[in-house]
Amino acid sequence: MDRGRLEAFSDGVFAVAITLLALNLTVAGPGHGPLYSQLHWPAFAGYLISFLIIGIIWVNHHVLVRSIMTVDRTLLFVNLMLLLFVVLIPFGTATMADYLPGNSWDARLAMVIYAGIFLGMSAAFGAIFEWTLHGQGRVHQPVLPEQRWAARFRFVGGAGAYVVAVVVALFSAIAAFLLISAVAVYYIFERTPTSPATPDSRDDSPLVG
Amino acid sequence: MDRGRLEAFSDGVFAVAITLLALNLTVAGPGHGPLYSQLHWPAFAGYLISFLIIGIIWVNHHVLVRSIMTVDRTLLFVNLMLLLFVVLIPFGTATMADYLPGNSWDARLAMVIYAGIFLGMSAAFGAIFEWTLHGQGRVHQPVLPEQRWAARFRFVGGAGAYVVAVVVALFSAIAAFLLISAVAVYYIFERTPTSPATPDSRDDSPLVG
Amino acid sequence: MDRGRLEAFSDGVFAVAITLLALNLTVAGPGHGPLYSQLHWPAFAGYLISFLIIGIIWVNHHVLVRSIMTVDRTLLFVNLMLLLFVVLIPFGTATMADYLPGNSWDARLAMVIYAGIFLGMSAAFGAIFEWTLHGQGRVHQPVLPEQRWAARFRFVGGAGAYVVAVVVALFSAIAAFLLISAVAVYYIFERTPTSPATPDSRDDSPLVG
Amino acid sequence: MDRGRLEAFSDGVFAVAITLLALNLTVAGPGHGPLYSQLHWPAFAGYLISFLIIGIIWVNHHVLVRSIMTVDRTLLFVNLMLLLFVVLIPFGTATMADYLPGNSWDARLAMVIYAGIFLGMSAAFGAIFEWTLHGQGRVHQPVLPEQRWAARFRFVGGAGAYVVAVVVALFSAIAAFLLISAVAVYYIFERTPTSPATPDSRDDSPLVG
Repeated sequence: MDRGRLEAFSDGVFAVAITLLALNLTVAGPGHGPLYSQLHWPAFAGYLISFLIIGIIWVNHHVLVRSIMTVDRTLLFVNLMLLLFVVLIPFGTATMADYLPGNSWDARLAMVIYAGIFLGMSAAFGAIFEWTLHGQGRVHQPVLPEQRWAARFRFVGGAGAYVVAVVVALFSAIAAFLLISAVAVYYIFERTPTSPATPDSRDDSPLVG
Repeated sequence: MDRGRLEAFSDGVFAVAITLLALNLTVAGPGHGPLYSQLHWPAFAGYLISFLIIGIIWVNHHVLVRSIMTVDRTLLFVNLMLLLFVVLIPFGTATMADYLPGNSWDARLAMVIYAGIFLGMSAAFGAIFEWTLHGQGRVHQPVLPEQRWAARFRFVGGAGAYVVAVVVALFSAIAAFLLISAVAVYYIFERTPTSPATPDSRDDSPLVG
Repeated sequence: MDRGRLEAFSDGVFAVAITLLALNLTVAGPGHGPLYSQLHWPAFAGYLISFLIIGIIWVNHHVLVRSIMTVDRTLLFVNLMLLLFVVLIPFGTATMADYLPGNSWDARLAMVIYAGIFLGMSAAFGAIFEWTLHGQGRVHQPVLPEQRWAARFRFVGGAGAYVVAVVVALFSAIAAFLLISAVAVYYIFERTPTSPATPDSRDDSPLVG
Repeated sequence: MDRGRLEAFSDGVFAVAITLLALNLTVAGPGHGPLYSQLHWPAFAGYLISFLIIGIIWVNHHVLVRSIMTVDRTLLFVNLMLLLFVVLIPFGTATMADYLPGNSWDARLAMVIYAGIFLGMSAAFGAIFEWTLHGQGRVHQPVLPEQRWAARFRFVGGAGAYVVAVVVALFSAIAAFLLISAVAVYYIFERTPTSPATPDSRDDSPLVG
């Protein structure tokens, strides 16, 4: 099992999951009231934010995976867990959008599920990152011990935000959604320091710096 | 992040989106009137035109992307925006076809959405093209300043047509659909001048010339 | 545009289309009568035959495409037409299976559509094959003029069978389905002569001989 | 037809099938009772187990296929049969989950179908493995005759468990589901002996040892 295979399969799952997001966008059609009233804005907002988050995790996945030199059973399993949560995103998005913009118990539960899926995804990504830190010959140039916490913060910082989002969702569905959206926009636009985990960091500078 | 990864992920999204177009083609089945009356022609016309447009943008995407030497965060984000609109095409096609061939307010709104999705796609593609024009070492052989407007017209000319289509859709849904169809057929059949953005233009001549 | 890109995109479309076939397999669930009566056998028979036919066209596509040296606009368009019909197969399968095993006018119309999709697919494949026969430097080792008709029969022979299936479907839906099934089984199991269009025919012998 | 093509197409099908599993996860939405009561736990349990099983067969497929040197028509057909069963998994999962946690005749029939799909998948995988054992020059380093039964047990051992699961499902749907789950967890976590079928077994040791 070489790394290329892991990347190709993961890419396929990312591509299908990001495209299935649009299946949530449907209108009932003629005879169900005016079209504008059928366009449920949370469905479109959810589409946008979930699309960005899958896009971000796809980028981060590749930045991390390309430094990997050897693929073992543990990595395959943890990567499968990451994909398991990614594949849940269209479901979480549809359910959450169905109950927004209200703040009923059900809306909050749906938002807890939505944030919880991202938390699981982020935790699985963190597990891949931890895997790269231990053992011999797993990555081209391991992160130095004194840089690990900074790297953890950069790669897995989203997990903390998602924990907060789960808690916020217990009180306000819309506030949790805004928080998740802010995290997505932050990751898209903020400059991220160059990854020390990659051997060719100079080539990376346009991407992560 | 190398270019190959960007292409593979984009290809996956293009392939899934173009295939999901056919999910809009359904019949209610036995007990819902004769089969021929269940075959809603706008659904098939929409399938054909949207299929061609995704096919065209896929070709253009590769002509443009293969000259790229370095992938930075801006390019990744703009490419993600392109894919975001591409993934919306099956939704836009289904909604538009539901309301055709009428010309109600809803039919026109649906056509504005349909044309608007292509406009967004075309604008994102234009943003990728602009990205290639600026900065050092982004593409193998940048377009010369005096050729930029010609290249813009060639690569992004569709955006102008889609602006017109959005305006036309405010008055006549079917006229806007015919205009969009004409753009698709034009791009499929017309010969396009050889791209100056590609270093190996001689090899390209069968494709773009 | 190199050949690899054409293959990757086509492979993606083939893979998604073949997987979407299974979306036609659904049961209404508890409360809709016994499960065995919900399992509509034509849906499963249609799944099997359509799966085999997509599998066959995928194999033939690669045998033909790998000998191609240059990709031009005509080839891209004709390949897009092939994919357009492939993507229609899940729709045609679902519609046909809905009306089987009856022989109403609707069942026959549905079977005409099903056979017609394969006919379109086969015609597009034939157009790709004709493209390889003409022009300079399109394939590694063009088919010799005296071998063209034999090669046509081998690569595009299915088209003739599908014409017959369309005609038969006008009279008997089930007979047309059996004919299409027989074609699929024939192509799967029969030995096909080694392709003269490929330069490395010796390496192919396990595949096509 | 080179091996890479077979792998790419199979990977695409695996990726789409594993992602389509999540389409079974839907809620009726507001107005259909509290959300928590709409979250049918067997649907989520089925998602988890089927996801793991597709992940496992994907890993095993690559361990086996990468040692293959030549691709013939028989291999293509048997591989297509494997994919045919993999693509059925989302359907089997949805049907089985609809009828759980009850133990009606229908629930047992649904579980027989679910286990039967895995049995078919496992049998097709076994057929690929048998193909590697016979003939000259099919794999880099064929399994020695005295190691064949051990290798069979390792690669195809699941088939035996699925036969038992089919029989158990005739009496208790939930017991059969627990058995299938146990097989999935066993394959994920248990260490598998290094494959003698692979020429570079030392490089594999992290994966299969």
